[in-house]
Amino acid sequence: MRVVALAGGVGGAKLASGLQAAVGDELTVVVNTADDLERHGLLVCPDHDTVMYTLAGLDDRVQGWGIRDESFAAAGMLERYREETWFRLGDRDLATHIVRTERIRAGARLTEVCLGLQRALGVVAKILPMTDDTVRTQVRTDDGWLEFQEYFVHRHQAPEVHEVRFEGIEHAEATARVRGELGFAETIVIAPSNPIVSIGPILAVPGVRDLFAAARRGGTPVLAVSPIVGGKALKGPADRMLVSLGHEASALGVARLYAGLVDGFVVDTVDAALAPAVEALGMRTLVTDTVMTDDASRERLAREILAFGRAVRA
Amino acid sequence: MRVVALAGGVGGAKLASGLQAAVGDELTVVVNTADDLERHGLLVCPDHDTVMYTLAGLDDRVQGWGIRDESFAAAGMLERYREETWFRLGDRDLATHIVRTERIRAGARLTEVCLGLQRALGVVAKILPMTDDTVRTQVRTDDGWLEFQEYFVHRHQAPEVHEVRFEGIEHAEATARVRGELGFAETIVIAPSNPIVSIGPILAVPGVRDLFAAARRGGTPVLAVSPIVGGKALKGPADRMLVSLGHEASALGVARLYAGLVDGFVVDTVDAALAPAVEALGMRTLVTDTVMTDDASRERLAREILAFGRAVRA
Repeated sequence: MRVVALAGGVGGAKLASGLQAAVGDELTVVVNTADDLERHGLLVCPDHDTVMYTLAGLDDRVQGWGIRDESFAAAGMLERYREETWFRLGDRDLATHIVRTERIRAGARLTEVCLGLQRALGVVAKILPMTDDTVRTQVRTDDGWLEFQEYFVHRHQAPEVHEVRFEGIEHAEATARVRGELGFAETIVIAPSNPIVSIGPILAVPGVRDLFAAARRGGTPVLAVSPIVGGKALKGPADRMLVSLGHEASALGVARLYAGLVDGFVVDTVDAALAPAVEALGMRTLVTDTVMTDDASRERLAREILAFGRAVRA
Repeated sequence: MRVVALAGGVGGAKLASGLQAAVGDELTVVVNTADDLERHGLLVCPDHDTVMYTLAGLDDRVQGWGIRDESFAAAGMLERYREETWFRLGDRDLATHIVRTERIRAGARLTEVCLGLQRALGVVAKILPMTDDTVRTQVRTDDGWLEFQEYFVHRHQAPEVHEVRFEGIEHAEATARVRGELGFAETIVIAPSNPIVSIGPILAVPGVRDLFAAARRGGTPVLAVSPIVGGKALKGPADRMLVSLGHEASALGVARLYAGLVDGFVVDTVDAALAPAVEALGMRTLVTDTVMTDDASRERLAREILAFGRAVRA
């Protein structure tokens, strides 16, 4: 069962780890790269690395992000050197960015570098950057256009987002690996990540929506999982961002964004009442517990989604 | 009392800290850059950093090198990524290399970057790279020519050194800062560093020997401290290297290398018997305890050397 998941950060990483438990090396995760950034001269890929650390079993379950048992000795020294350290990088995490930056400077492509890092950490699935080209999310706030991480980390998502753009997206290409995996996928799953700034950039890469359409014509179910549960984002600013951009902060609001793109939509049991309205958008629904609190719940949700995919196309 | 010290690694750093205690911001240390190297895409300057950490009071007194309370979390991760980690970099130390590399890539010169790092760590003296150009020490062994750190760190100084060269030295320029400081120096001190591979490259930078000669003509004493005590290097391979290159592994052997260049030479009390032979080379001698075991002995030796300089030119 070849599965392709589209994922952003933490929520996507959790579902990806459940899918990896279910299908092992038949899983490919396509990750958002539009919130990548350069810090201290190093290329940092937050979404890729969150998924990688999670699939390698290195994720910090208590804190909910980053590497378990991470230390911050280098960050303290960077502060002494008066570097801006609002994007605080742990010591182990820094090693990732150092190696990535070194290999890219030596001429390697982001995809190949990331696959090498994943292999070294023993990740079973493959995690593919959506593109090897540079795309950067920017959000328009009352203070003007901000780089995504400036808004997300430095300003703690406090400013209201009036508009979102993906700088460079029109010239970005889906990599051959991404195109190939989408072409051969037997199930495509949009993870419960922010639909605007995590999934949005992946879907905005030229050609990706066509690949979805082609996959669906070939019988591959495309499914999405709501990142909004009971009107709230489990993590991050997706709920407020949906509202400030004129959408509804609900599973239904997310389903509307995916209308015409997916065959099935997964909503949490607390949102069961929204299922009929979602189905009216032309998609099937699966109502289940979508909150992943441990390995078992990650894998259970993953297996339910895969079964839902088979049912949707039956 | 404007003092310029020439220094390599640990021994030089200790004397530099004594000199800093004695004359404060009137001290300038010119450091060897020929054992700099690139690791993991980062520019590492071992001699500069050893002196900087020591003058900042961050040096590890127990281990004898590196930063006190250093951790190696990133190095462990770099190993997982199958990076070569024989040049093991600590987490705090990595921050130094990250910042330096970032600023140099942004177009800054090594000297200005290093001065910025020093200021941030509260170093009172100035530490100047001998050049902003790239010079790299290589040693010829039975295994052929090796990069210096390959010999020094990776192979633990085991191979016998038959020849030494400073790749790039002919095109290297002493910086304006180095030329200026040597021109205004009231005392010049060659620290007890390896005369071949620590002091050697500094003296080999085109023009430096002429600046020494000009300073001496102007009345500035040039003094050197033997890094060999009782026929042994206190640290590192200087003794074996002297022998394999056809010199004598003794304070006298070192004095011969500096003949014609210095006015005064400092030997340890255990080598008092060598003083007449050293004086026969045309230099005055100071016989004193040169082994620096704590801050007090560093400063005492520094003050004795400065007094010796005044006596030499009196």
